[in-house]
Amino acid sequence: MSAHDPLITITSDFGTADSYVAQMKGVILGVNSRTRLIDVTHEIPPQAVFRAALMLPELLQTFPAGTYHLVVVDPGVGSARRILAAELDGHYFIAPDNGLLDPLLQQATHSRVYELTNSRFWRNEISTTFHGRDIMAPAIAHWSRGATLDEMGEPLSGSPISLPLPEPTMTESEVVGTILYVDHFGNMVSNIRREHVKQWEGSDVDPIIRLESEGSLRFIDSGISETYADSLPGQGLILWGSHGFLEVALNGGNAAAKFKSQAGETLTIY
Amino acid sequence: MSAHDPLITITSDFGTADSYVAQMKGVILGVNSRTRLIDVTHEIPPQAVFRAALMLPELLQTFPAGTYHLVVVDPGVGSARRILAAELDGHYFIAPDNGLLDPLLQQATHSRVYELTNSRFWRNEISTTFHGRDIMAPAIAHWSRGATLDEMGEPLSGSPISLPLPEPTMTESEVVGTILYVDHFGNMVSNIRREHVKQWEGSDVDPIIRLESEGSLRFIDSGISETYADSLPGQGLILWGSHGFLEVALNGGNAAAKFKSQAGETLTIY
Amino acid sequence: MSAHDPLITITSDFGTADSYVAQMKGVILGVNSRTRLIDVTHEIPPQAVFRAALMLPELLQTFPAGTYHLVVVDPGVGSARRILAAELDGHYFIAPDNGLLDPLLQQATHSRVYELTNSRFWRNEISTTFHGRDIMAPAIAHWSRGATLDEMGEPLSGSPISLPLPEPTMTESEVVGTILYVDHFGNMVSNIRREHVKQWEGSDVDPIIRLESEGSLRFIDSGISETYADSLPGQGLILWGSHGFLEVALNGGNAAAKFKSQAGETLTIY
Repeated sequence: MSAHDPLITITSDFGTADSYVAQMKGVILGVNSRTRLIDVTHEIPPQAVFRAALMLPELLQTFPAGTYHLVVVDPGVGSARRILAAELDGHYFIAPDNGLLDPLLQQATHSRVYELTNSRFWRNEISTTFHGRDIMAPAIAHWSRGATLDEMGEPLSGSPISLPLPEPTMTESEVVGTILYVDHFGNMVSNIRREHVKQWEGSDVDPIIRLESEGSLRFIDSGISETYADSLPGQGLILWGSHGFLEVALNGGNAAAKFKSQAGETLTIY
Repeated sequence: MSAHDPLITITSDFGTADSYVAQMKGVILGVNSRTRLIDVTHEIPPQAVFRAALMLPELLQTFPAGTYHLVVVDPGVGSARRILAAELDGHYFIAPDNGLLDPLLQQATHSRVYELTNSRFWRNEISTTFHGRDIMAPAIAHWSRGATLDEMGEPLSGSPISLPLPEPTMTESEVVGTILYVDHFGNMVSNIRREHVKQWEGSDVDPIIRLESEGSLRFIDSGISETYADSLPGQGLILWGSHGFLEVALNGGNAAAKFKSQAGETLTIY
Repeated sequence: MSAHDPLITITSDFGTADSYVAQMKGVILGVNSRTRLIDVTHEIPPQAVFRAALMLPELLQTFPAGTYHLVVVDPGVGSARRILAAELDGHYFIAPDNGLLDPLLQQATHSRVYELTNSRFWRNEISTTFHGRDIMAPAIAHWSRGATLDEMGEPLSGSPISLPLPEPTMTESEVVGTILYVDHFGNMVSNIRREHVKQWEGSDVDPIIRLESEGSLRFIDSGISETYADSLPGQGLILWGSHGFLEVALNGGNAAAKFKSQAGETLTIY
């Protein structure tokens, strides 16, 4: 293996019970047999563009520059939605134009965004239901073996679709955030980032954080922890997750189950 | 990595919670460290030979010629069932002789089918419960590094076991098919292929398609769509799936859940 | 690909719905792009150290010598628990010091155990919640490209944490074991190994085996089978599993479901 064999990550909502993901891999390897393929996840909830979009910045922070990323969460397949190829801070992405790349594009210091238009880089027969296999997989494989954005498409006309990600509501005395999703461990990940809680920095008084579900209080705590070990086993705590969002967690347990709570609920800091 | 390092796909009903799949991979890599391993799925329902058999043609259509495919859905492990090694249109398969390769063999234009008999290409100790690890994994690894079918076994005597896949019932006025399985998205995949609906080609009148479950009508539509976008969000539609079978789908939703239906139900065209 | 490109297996309780596993892979590939990564499983029940610990000997028996193994089941992350790097009979392991390596260490004929202490081989920023990504992943990648244990850490002071694995109770007339876990097929794996049933070897009388759940008899059989095919379809049987533990299984079905039983129940031989 050469250190220069291209790396392609794959993220989708295809699940792993069918052969959909393998079909994309077969097509990629048929175009460029030297690629090394890494699954991110295929358990994005069906058509949950927003969940995949939030995951992509974590890939930018951990994979080496020069990695290719194929992202197929594509509820608009078969319609006129565009397919994007974007170079972002040294990483290469192909994804449908439905908001998937929006958080990345907002953070990127350097980006070039193209629309894939040249069918010479696609499979001969294009189904109407599976562009991940028929357009995006062969395109990223050709890209990884040297085809250029100018050969494969055209600079995007207009802006890419933006992702309607809810932002916390900020007032002088409180920040009202939302639980975006619950991860495998039951950790409840909110949309509150460090930049939203600057007003408590250097203060003598710890902020109070309150989790409410269906209008009733489920958990309340003061202060933000840095590690699970800051609370006793079985007790809830508020901490910064590994991706920089504020989480409600449970030391040694499942917070969402214990607090009978879920995505969409309200997290308030005051 | 050389473009000629052999590619081996793996399909099984082992699930991914235990180490069974990894054990097979370890054995393969111990015999031929140059192989590149691709998971198709390990979530074939336990011992559902038929589900894996229907998946294999999709691999033939997407993976490059020269790919090896290990298929371990093996309810007869430990009994006298044979183990097959088959060369099929430039692809190489190892699977138990229980019908898994039947759909492939019926479509293949060129095939050679052997029975694995030479234990020199197996692990030293053969368990009675895990021939995937002890016989098939080392055999496919040896095959991928140059062992020949004639070294590893003998031409199959008699026919391979055939798969009892239900065919649609055809009359002059209607085609009565069956839902074979429901995929990750809730799409209901039937056994009806394009060859079964030729009588409506070029006709002015669209066929009517009716889904019945437990004897009651669940969905009815006229015409076959080419894409999900042909129906309104939340509405059912009938379309050709990416593998060539007729599907009942739901634009932006789960058809099987909405129509309270499942594998085994009846789909009629008239 | 060179046959000498290092192989790294990954075992965790991270699930596959989030990007946690991919983040570790990105970090590994950023340090050593030549590694080949193999997933064992990421479905260890959350924080079930014991389940992963029992799986590791199966990797030693199937992967080639020289394989690296990253094992991240880490309920103590963020606390003062140590992180181990161990060379065991030609395999290389990195895991938190919480009992994960205990069964391996007890069986190994040659072992060297170090504590990872040199942060030069870690990521620049160390989170308090994800040492798998920030410490263990980069460390195993550096190890796989030539860093030595003496560079990365220090010989372990004191003993590693031991795993409280229940042993069967042995009397002259009976062996009382425990169901350790239930696998994907519903096979119920006990803690009884061949060494525990020597008293029946060469005897004319087959042992009787009895499965009890919540105090009531669920299954009773005489004799230990060598293969599923020794019983009729749909019937229970007792056999040696592929890993050397005694199992309760069902020919063609799910034993745990049929016998309404689960991990923790009692299996008695007499």
